[in-house]
Amino acid sequence: MSAQWWEGERLDERRARAAWSALAEPGDLVAGALVASLGPVDALALVGVAARGGLHEAWAQVVGPGPDADGSSRSRDPRVERSVRRWAARFADLDVDADLGALAELGGMFVVPHDDAWPRGLDALGLAAPFGIWLRGAANLGVALHRAVALVGARASTSYGERVALELAAGVVDAGACVVSGGAYGIDAAAHRGALGRGGRTVVVLAGGVDRAYPAGNARMFEAVVGEGGALLAEVPPGRTPTKSRFLQRNRLIAAAASATVVVEAAWRSGAMSTAHHAARLLRPVGAVPGPVTSVASAGCHRLLREGSAVCVTDAAEVMDLAGLVGRDLADEPVVDARRGDELDPESARVLDALPRRTGADVAAVAARAGVTAYEAEAALGLLELRGLAARSGSGWRWLSASNGSGR
Amino acid sequence: MSAQWWEGERLDERRARAAWSALAEPGDLVAGALVASLGPVDALALVGVAARGGLHEAWAQVVGPGPDADGSSRSRDPRVERSVRRWAARFADLDVDADLGALAELGGMFVVPHDDAWPRGLDALGLAAPFGIWLRGAANLGVALHRAVALVGARASTSYGERVALELAAGVVDAGACVVSGGAYGIDAAAHRGALGRGGRTVVVLAGGVDRAYPAGNARMFEAVVGEGGALLAEVPPGRTPTKSRFLQRNRLIAAAASATVVVEAAWRSGAMSTAHHAARLLRPVGAVPGPVTSVASAGCHRLLREGSAVCVTDAAEVMDLAGLVGRDLADEPVVDARRGDELDPESARVLDALPRRTGADVAAVAARAGVTAYEAEAALGLLELRGLAARSGSGWRWLSASNGSGR
Repeated sequence: MSAQWWEGERLDERRARAAWSALAEPGDLVAGALVASLGPVDALALVGVAARGGLHEAWAQVVGPGPDADGSSRSRDPRVERSVRRWAARFADLDVDADLGALAELGGMFVVPHDDAWPRGLDALGLAAPFGIWLRGAANLGVALHRAVALVGARASTSYGERVALELAAGVVDAGACVVSGGAYGIDAAAHRGALGRGGRTVVVLAGGVDRAYPAGNARMFEAVVGEGGALLAEVPPGRTPTKSRFLQRNRLIAAAASATVVVEAAWRSGAMSTAHHAARLLRPVGAVPGPVTSVASAGCHRLLREGSAVCVTDAAEVMDLAGLVGRDLADEPVVDARRGDELDPESARVLDALPRRTGADVAAVAARAGVTAYEAEAALGLLELRGLAARSGSGWRWLSASNGSGR
Repeated sequence: MSAQWWEGERLDERRARAAWSALAEPGDLVAGALVASLGPVDALALVGVAARGGLHEAWAQVVGPGPDADGSSRSRDPRVERSVRRWAARFADLDVDADLGALAELGGMFVVPHDDAWPRGLDALGLAAPFGIWLRGAANLGVALHRAVALVGARASTSYGERVALELAAGVVDAGACVVSGGAYGIDAAAHRGALGRGGRTVVVLAGGVDRAYPAGNARMFEAVVGEGGALLAEVPPGRTPTKSRFLQRNRLIAAAASATVVVEAAWRSGAMSTAHHAARLLRPVGAVPGPVTSVASAGCHRLLREGSAVCVTDAAEVMDLAGLVGRDLADEPVVDARRGDELDPESARVLDALPRRTGADVAAVAARAGVTAYEAEAALGLLELRGLAARSGSGWRWLSASNGSGR
């Protein structure tokens, strides 16, 4: 098998990035630094030479003389050396064209920085940014993710959490934004279904290849996501399996792709919590949905709220407000009927309180009970009468119920 | 009837304060300022003279020449004049000895500042502090309230909220502190019952007189509170009815009496929210218990959390921590079993991920799958074997389940 494609050939940048996404594990900062410093093509050449020859030869050929005039100080950096050996060990199995071909067969595309489809939010990851995105679905992913909210949460969700995730996702797409989440059962799936149920767009960020429906039970949902103009994306090539470390690194992509991350339900320690912390590190807003304190599925959300790491969000308007994707007006205070007498001056309010409900009372009695002078009581009673809150009753006054008052 | 007790008599400070608590409505800042400036005895004399004669005569007799050398500027302050007229209107019905006698018959005591039983927390109210406290129960109220948490909430509570209030109250008294709340149905009652259920102390702050069981359905509970060493307290004399404004002012007493206020359930606008705002104004910590976002009974709590006015609290340890009544150690993070492999270095964790579950795989295959060198894989496998996480399988290695591993 092996690296015949490599013999005598320098890859273009896109294919070099595809190769890097196969060689280095997601989030590998040493790979990120090397690619940033040499460019993906030369960095890949370094690994290729190292795979066939020695590390010293690789440095000499690709990097040339280093800052110490003989390159030795750079070639001896133990962290880089160790990493290059690691990538070189995988080099023999590398087949970029097969990976790109597998994606093309699925109708997908490999997206790299500066492509229109590239989600600009990922750039905030710096050296931890993916080398490229293996994408199925929305060719205009970059545009879609310009207005996007991550709704994440536990696999071990409750029906309460799933219902909230569904409703928040529906509200997010109704507000013209895109949902982002993982592909797991529970909250992730409920969020995607909520978006799909409104004909909205949603993006599934996978830990394995985009050809791998993981978990398999969500395969049909993934197809629906692609069919509705959403997308499946991954930073590892097709065919790769999700591993624990890939799941953890996948979370940074979710956080970086969206304008804000909302945790719907999460245990005290969980992947959703890691996504929230990634978002916080990226200085993106983080929201948490509260739930019953008796529910362990909400413990992570409450922890975020308690630590001040997240803002309490209870509906889609608050989510959009958090993400800064709409003006504050969508998250207005709920309309509450002004209570009877709320807008009264203090004396009138006390007089209203002091009025008997059934029989009438004279002004002096009302004044004494309210703790105001008779003059103040008279003035207040006139005001209350005008507002339909008090009525004359014989020689005295009585309280008027709202239903009576509204009939006036 | 009337003010015969007054003729020719100067009341002692305690009786003068009792008189003021009958004359002025709770929270009357003008009364507070007058009493603070003249002392309760002279301030009462001012009202007594005003009730029988004119306001000008009252000022001349009691206050004497004011800052303008003729007292005119003070006597003409319209706000004070209006207030004195108001108190004077109530003066005729004042009967301090009858009020104190009614309390004594109930076995209660009237507590004033500098008494041992005086709750020092109330002093933070400044001019809005009550003139005295009409108290039934705990003679050592001041000591009891030295460690106290207010648990407040909606009358229209849910069974969820009541359960949480019960459990928080039980936890608060278990931690050696006292519960404070109003006397309403719903969360207030659940909090008191939770404390009583553990044989703990709880304090009911009433809006009407301490002889008035309001609501009547809680009468037996109020007696149990007194019987268990707790207390009923009010700032209006026995016999007085609770009014809307007295309920609102009562909330400031709850907030001031406790070291912290926790809202268990509250609608968007409610008395419990007013208590929380009083506590915040007094710079006392405020906690809010989250609940389902679908529950209007939790909307007020979520509002407090969202606005950053309250800290999210989910159990009694967090409540005590909020109140600063224990060291932080009681609100430790829940004990979570360290997950398998969580404490491993990154390479070993990846090797653990890469191990096949059933059949063995040789070191090179494991290394390639994990993305590490063969040397690193060998080192990691040795470590994992020592920890019972990996086992040799033929010439290769396989993953070891926790149950197998623990049997070693």
